[in-house]
This record gives sequence, C-alpha cells and structure tokens, in this order.
Amino acid sequence: MPATEHHNALLTDLYELTMAAAYFENKLAANATFELFVRSLPPERGFLLAAGLEQALDYLENLRFQKDDIAYLREQTVFHHISAEFFEYLKNFRFTGEVWAMPEGTPVFGEEPFLRVTAPIIEAQIVETFLLSILTFQTMIASKAARVVRAARGRHVIEFGSRRAHGPDAAVLAARAAYIGGCAGTSNVEAGRRHGIPIFGTLAHSFIMAYVDETEAFRKFHQLFPEHSILLVDTYDTLAAVDKIIKNDLRPSAIRLDSGDLVELSIQARKRLDQAGLKETKIFASGDLDEYAIRGLLDRGAQIDGFGVGTALATSKDAPALGGVYKLVDLESDGNISYRAKFSEEKLSYPGRKQVFRSHDSARIFCGDTVACETEVFPGDEPLLSCVMQKGKRVCPAPDLSAIQRYARQQLERLPERCFEGRERYNVQFSQRLEDLLIIVRRRIKHQSEGKPGSEGVA
Amino acid sequence: MPATEHHNALLTDLYELTMAAAYFENKLAANATFELFVRSLPPERGFLLAAGLEQALDYLENLRFQKDDIAYLREQTVFHHISAEFFEYLKNFRFTGEVWAMPEGTPVFGEEPFLRVTAPIIEAQIVETFLLSILTFQTMIASKAARVVRAARGRHVIEFGSRRAHGPDAAVLAARAAYIGGCAGTSNVEAGRRHGIPIFGTLAHSFIMAYVDETEAFRKFHQLFPEHSILLVDTYDTLAAVDKIIKNDLRPSAIRLDSGDLVELSIQARKRLDQAGLKETKIFASGDLDEYAIRGLLDRGAQIDGFGVGTALATSKDAPALGGVYKLVDLESDGNISYRAKFSEEKLSYPGRKQVFRSHDSARIFCGDTVACETEVFPGDEPLLSCVMQKGKRVCPAPDLSAIQRYARQQLERLPERCFEGRERYNVQFSQRLEDLLIIVRRRIKHQSEGKPGSEGVA
Repeated sequence: MPATEHHNALLTDLYELTMAAAYFENKLAANATFELFVRSLPPERGFLLAAGLEQALDYLENLRFQKDDIAYLREQTVFHHISAEFFEYLKNFRFTGEVWAMPEGTPVFGEEPFLRVTAPIIEAQIVETFLLSILTFQTMIASKAARVVRAARGRHVIEFGSRRAHGPDAAVLAARAAYIGGCAGTSNVEAGRRHGIPIFGTLAHSFIMAYVDETEAFRKFHQLFPEHSILLVDTYDTLAAVDKIIKNDLRPSAIRLDSGDLVELSIQARKRLDQAGLKETKIFASGDLDEYAIRGLLDRGAQIDGFGVGTALATSKDAPALGGVYKLVDLESDGNISYRAKFSEEKLSYPGRKQVFRSHDSARIFCGDTVACETEVFPGDEPLLSCVMQKGKRVCPAPDLSAIQRYARQQLERLPERCFEGRERYNVQFSQRLEDLLIIVRRRIKHQSEGKPGSEGVA
Repeated sequence: MPATEHHNALLTDLYELTMAAAYFENKLAANATFELFVRSLPPERGFLLAAGLEQALDYLENLRFQKDDIAYLREQTVFHHISAEFFEYLKNFRFTGEVWAMPEGTPVFGEEPFLRVTAPIIEAQIVETFLLSILTFQTMIASKAARVVRAARGRHVIEFGSRRAHGPDAAVLAARAAYIGGCAGTSNVEAGRRHGIPIFGTLAHSFIMAYVDETEAFRKFHQLFPEHSILLVDTYDTLAAVDKIIKNDLRPSAIRLDSGDLVELSIQARKRLDQAGLKETKIFASGDLDEYAIRGLLDRGAQIDGFGVGTALATSKDAPALGGVYKLVDLESDGNISYRAKFSEEKLSYPGRKQVFRSHDSARIFCGDTVACETEVFPGDEPLLSCVMQKGKRVCPAPDLSAIQRYARQQLERLPERCFEGRERYNVQFSQRLEDLLIIVRRRIKHQSEGKPGSEGVA
C-alpha cells in the first residue's frame, strides 16, 4: 500500500475496539506502554531476524477511521450502549505515540521485545492486531530466508513462493522479508515495483507444452530474452532437453531443473554443457527446496549455481507461525508510572519498559543478551532498541531495502554458527533489577487481588 | 477489495508476463485450457473444502494493467527486446475466458480439478499465480475449519487468528474461509464488514491489567457491554476471578478461560457459576487450540460451550501449504483441439478438459469420485464442475456467504467419517477413457520429441 494511502482501521480484532470504547467511556486516558515479543522460538529456529518495521510505522502514521468504518461499527449491537462521543473520537483518531524498535535485520530471540509502543491507552490498544500480524509474519519469513540463504553457501536464492503464499498480499510481504533475509530477488512483480526488489523469472512447463516441439519452445523464448533466458528442461526428459539446447546452439543464461535427482542431473547437465563449450550457462534448480534439501544437494556434489525456493520460504512451512504477543508493561499518568505484569499459570510477563543489551566477544561474534530495565546501562554491550517514532511521526525516513539487507547480512555474520542449527539455545537472561521488579510487582498485585490496600504508583 | 475496484495485474510471477510477451510476439493466440488442482492431500488431511472462488472471479472480471504497471514493466531490462505492441496490448488487457469450477463449500480431493480456465493463452497464463494463491489458501483454511468445527461437536467455534495470520489481508481471507468451513464468526472486524460474517470479541489481559483491581475491570467492561461481555478470568488466578464475578453479581454472557488445565478449570468454574445461579453464563475457552486439543478437552469432560481458535486455524498450522498446480491440458485453434500433458519424472498430468463425478450410496454418503473426460457421462453420479464465467463475466451473481456455509455443511454431512480422521483415503479414480487418452498423448509427444512426424491435432 502506498505510504500516502490511509490504513484501514477495521483490520483489527473486535475486542481492540470494544476495549477502546470502554477506556473512552471510563475516561482512562493514561499513557500505556506495550511491548511486542515472541515468547519462545519454534524448535526449528535458533534465531529470528526482525522484519516488518516499515509497514508497521506506515500503518501507525496513516491509520484512520473512515466514515463508512464508523457507520459499520455503530450498526453492531455490541456497541449499543456506547456514546456518540466515542464515534466522534474515532473520526479524528490519530496514532500520536512513541515507538522504540530494533532495526529490521537485527537478530532477535525469545522474550526480547523488538517493538515497544507508548501512547494513550486507546491508541496503543487498537494497533495491537495489525502490529502483531505484520511484524511476526515478516520476521518469520526473514528468519527462514536467512537459513535458506546460509545453506546455499554463496549461491543465489530467489524467492519463488507467490502461488503458495497465504493470498496475494502475503506474497508481496513474503518477498520483501525474504529479501531482507538475504534472497537475491523474487518472482513477484508487485514486490519488485513496490519495494525495488530485483525480479526474476524462468519459464513454466505450460510454455514448453504450448509448442508441438520442445526445441521450438526453447528457441522462441530464447530469441526474445537472450540475456535472461532460463530454460526449463524437465518437461519430458531433462538430459534430452539439455542436448537439444546444445545441438541448437542456444546458449541460454541458465537451464532450470525442477524434478528428478537434482544431484545426478546437475552433474550430467554440467558435463554436457561444459563439453559443448556452454561454460557460461548456469544451472538453476527448484522443486520443493528448503535449507535441508539445499544443504543435502550441495553436500552430495550437486552442480547447481542458484536456487528457486517457493513454498518452504513464502509460508515458513516448518514453522508457519510465531507466538507473538503484545503485553502491557506500564501505565503512566501525571508523571507517575505504574508497572503492569501478567501471572497466569503458564504465561508470565515482565513489568516495565525494557531495553535489550547484546554482548559480543573479541571477534565481534554475539555471545548473549540481557533483557533489562530501560534505564539500566551495560557498558560495552549494544542496546538494540532505539526510538523510531515520536508523536506519531517517524523520526527518520525509511531506510532503503537494500541497506536493510546489507545490515542484516552483517548482523548474521556475527551470529554464532549454532544459531543456524537450532540445537543449542543462544543465551538470553533477564537483569537482576528486572527480576527484582517482577517480585515487587507480583507482591503488589497479589495484595490488591486479595483486597488488601495496594501500593499503586510505587512499584 | 470491493468488486468495483481494479485488480492489480502485477500481483503475479514475472514469468507469467515474460511468457505472455513471448506468446504475443510469436502470435500464439490459441485458446488454452488450464486446470487447477492439488496433486495430493497433506498427510494431515482426509479431504479439502473448496473455497476462494468469489475472490478468483472478482479478480478475473476486474484485472487491469494500469499505466504505471506498464511503465514499470517497460523499464525492466528483461523486456528489452519486446515490441511496443505488447505493452499496447496490455493497456487494453481484459480476461475474456470461460471458467468452470466446483462451488465453494464442495469437498475436493487430490488430482481433482476444482477450477478450469479456457481463454486465449496469454490471458489464461497471466492469471495463474493469483488464482493459485487465492484458491489454495482459502481452500486450506476452510478445510482446517471444517475439522475444528467437527471436533467441537456442535459448540460454536470462533476464528480468532488475525494476529497470527500471514499479514492483515491474509487475516480477512482466513476469516472468510473459516466461516465457510463452519465457524460461527470471527474476531476480524474488516471480515465482518466486507463479507457480512458475525463478529465476536472478548477482552484482553491488557484491559484487566489496566485497572488496579480485577473486579473493577470486570465491572467497567460489563456495564458497557451487558449482553456481550465475555470476561477473561485467567490474568492472575482463574477461579478467584470467577468468584469475584459471582460475588459482585455481574452475570456476564460468558467467561473466557485462556490458560491452565482447561478441563479442570472449566468443571470447577461451571460448578461455581451454577451454584451461584449463573446457569446462563457460558464458558468460552481459547489458548493454542486445534481439532486435536478440542477433541481431547471434550473427551475428558471439559464444561466448555464455545471455542476461540487462532493460530492453528488462520495459518492451517499443521499443513500450512497445499501443493496447488495449474496445468495446461489442451490448446484449441480453429476448432481443432490438441491435447497437452506433462511427463516429467515425478510429476505427471492428464490431458484434456475434465469433469469430476461423485457417486453416493443409498444414504447419500459420498463413496468415491471419478475424474473423467469432460464429455463422459456417469448416470447417477453428480458432476461437480459447472460453468461460472463466460466471456470474462460471471454467469450468475455471487452467492451469499451464509448460503455457501449452509451448502458446505450439507456437503460435509455427506462425507464419510473416515475423511475427518485422514487415515484411510477417499477413493478417486481416473476413467478408462482418460487413461487411454493419456497413453495416446504420451506416445505422440514421445514421437515428436524424438523428431518423428507427429500426429498433432489427432490425439
């Protein structure tokens, strides 16, 4: 969506709007701080790569309730007892808050907030659903892409998954996130146009099948795209197709293998191409690939120069959702801060605004993080969250997507190798001050819930 | 997207457009027929429920290349050798073809085409990516929803997964598909507005945490939404919260359990509510639920009246992608039909336009399907594909979404129970005529690929 367009405020859960109405009617106008994080990484992931911030900020800047939106809400019986003033308020609704975030392309782990919103509680509440969806989805895809790209050991990986993405808009977001994670490009044309990502294409079986003769199909396509022809050779018989290309002196920029034993076929194809002097013709492979398949192919000596990865990448198929949450950590009113935390049986959240500090060894490899109170200082460690929005406006312009990709690559080079294997966990600890604060807040809330006089505003 | 808006033609893979250019430059104007199907069901699924047709038809009717789209394409070096006439053609591009499809809500199995497109080859090619993405995504979600709803044994299931969906647009599509699959509603407000789906909401932990006292939070919310208050009771101590509701005589329409042992907590909560005379107050449960968890809860005697299902539903988490394909099956030119098929090593496709026939037993339970040539007749069996678009226009108006849901429910009642377990496969066979045709076409293509004189137009 272009940045000038308004964002649809109904792209949210109903309860965000009923709670907003209740805050409004009850005149609860405190500034709330929410933190967005993933509770724990899926077993298949040793790290995540933060992504989606630009779309999140664009949403916050351009979020509006249109007349029709408000009319729809007023018709719903659930809002029957809500005053006209609330709907009047929605008419002029703007997000006016402050946002801190990790830059896109930063590795992030479980329990680490990578976005923090401070705003009047109604505003901070309404944006929850959209922020979670846009940030955790892109983060999930960028993380998967980083793994796939690492497995390809320097060879190009192209994101090819639009047809298997969760709808056409998910496809564009996936292409963007995959590029951040290190892909060289995408097959998705709109992603190319909207985000400046290099676009790539090959040839479908249907094109080969549309001609009576496979050679004729190759020739027709190659003539029109001489510098960009990647000829698909597996429609009928892969090596026979390679021979036809050689015999007809077509010299495509690449051939594409899409089925069969990719190791054996790539070795045989390479041999034939080389013997015929087509040393410049690359071999591109696709067909249900992921990081495991790519590693296996290369370990077994496949002669492949580039990979097209679809389903596994565009849906993060082995870990297709992250447990992203958005938790209230404090309320600020008249300069007093009151901490908030949740203590339900399995799910605990830490109170107060946090900063994440990352330490590194002498080789600049990351060696552990501390989730701490915002005001703590850990000399030598890098604080990862910085202020990206004030009073509802970005504090600096959106970085170029290729700059984000470069930053991500530099960050990924500093990750311990074991993070790519996902076996051993990267060390994330909470600071002593945060643990102490948790105990104090827990005690206060327990007191209050037992009806004893609270110590609101102190803890 | 409203039906009057144009659909963005760049939401596609680059190769669809390079192939389109090549067809154009080579004056290949034949009518092509493509069939869309899923090769095989994921191991976790015993059936699929077709969904997404309305969005597919809306796309086909409103697909346009805007000036900017064309300017972007012309800038790409890959199109360097393509004539100005092609871009002129894109300016006036319309989809003018014919579409046959299974109605949304029809159970469908592997190898069964559920959409068939016949159009000038350029048009039929360009629409591939979008059709695959919109149809397989919604089909996947509707299928998952049908399983979850079945597991709930008549209790309401609400789709709650917007925050975990693959971006905000995927969330709206997921809500629509989940409703087709039998969900009673969604939390997604835009899905409610756009598709008329009932919207539901409860209360988040943040609302409880925003007040010093849990009882105060309950009271404030209940006052404003007396007929719609579903109070979330697990923020601190679930049963203590239930006691507060009783003690303060709040009488909410439901309470919501979101963590802990849902069986034990629901039994205890039910007992306390009943003893206090709150027999009308329902118990609603959520928290990482899916069909397996729901079945387990009910088998163990949980006293739960409704379920909110998020991640598992909105991402079809255990099977987050379907192997959807779109295969060229024939080309028609001057009234002559030339069959097409693919014979690469693992992936075979059958030639010619098909119809799917479904047989049923005396109790009207489905007992097996035959994928046959379009012109075959199987008396007593139901043909599943019908013509839904001619010359690029829908042949009848879009059915109401609740009518689609009703049709789906009736269809699901006729599915053998084993399809919900996914162990034993439903029987899908190919007709003898189709098998014979495959042999003839394979022989012809083999001849041609060996350079022997073909029999084009005959097979």
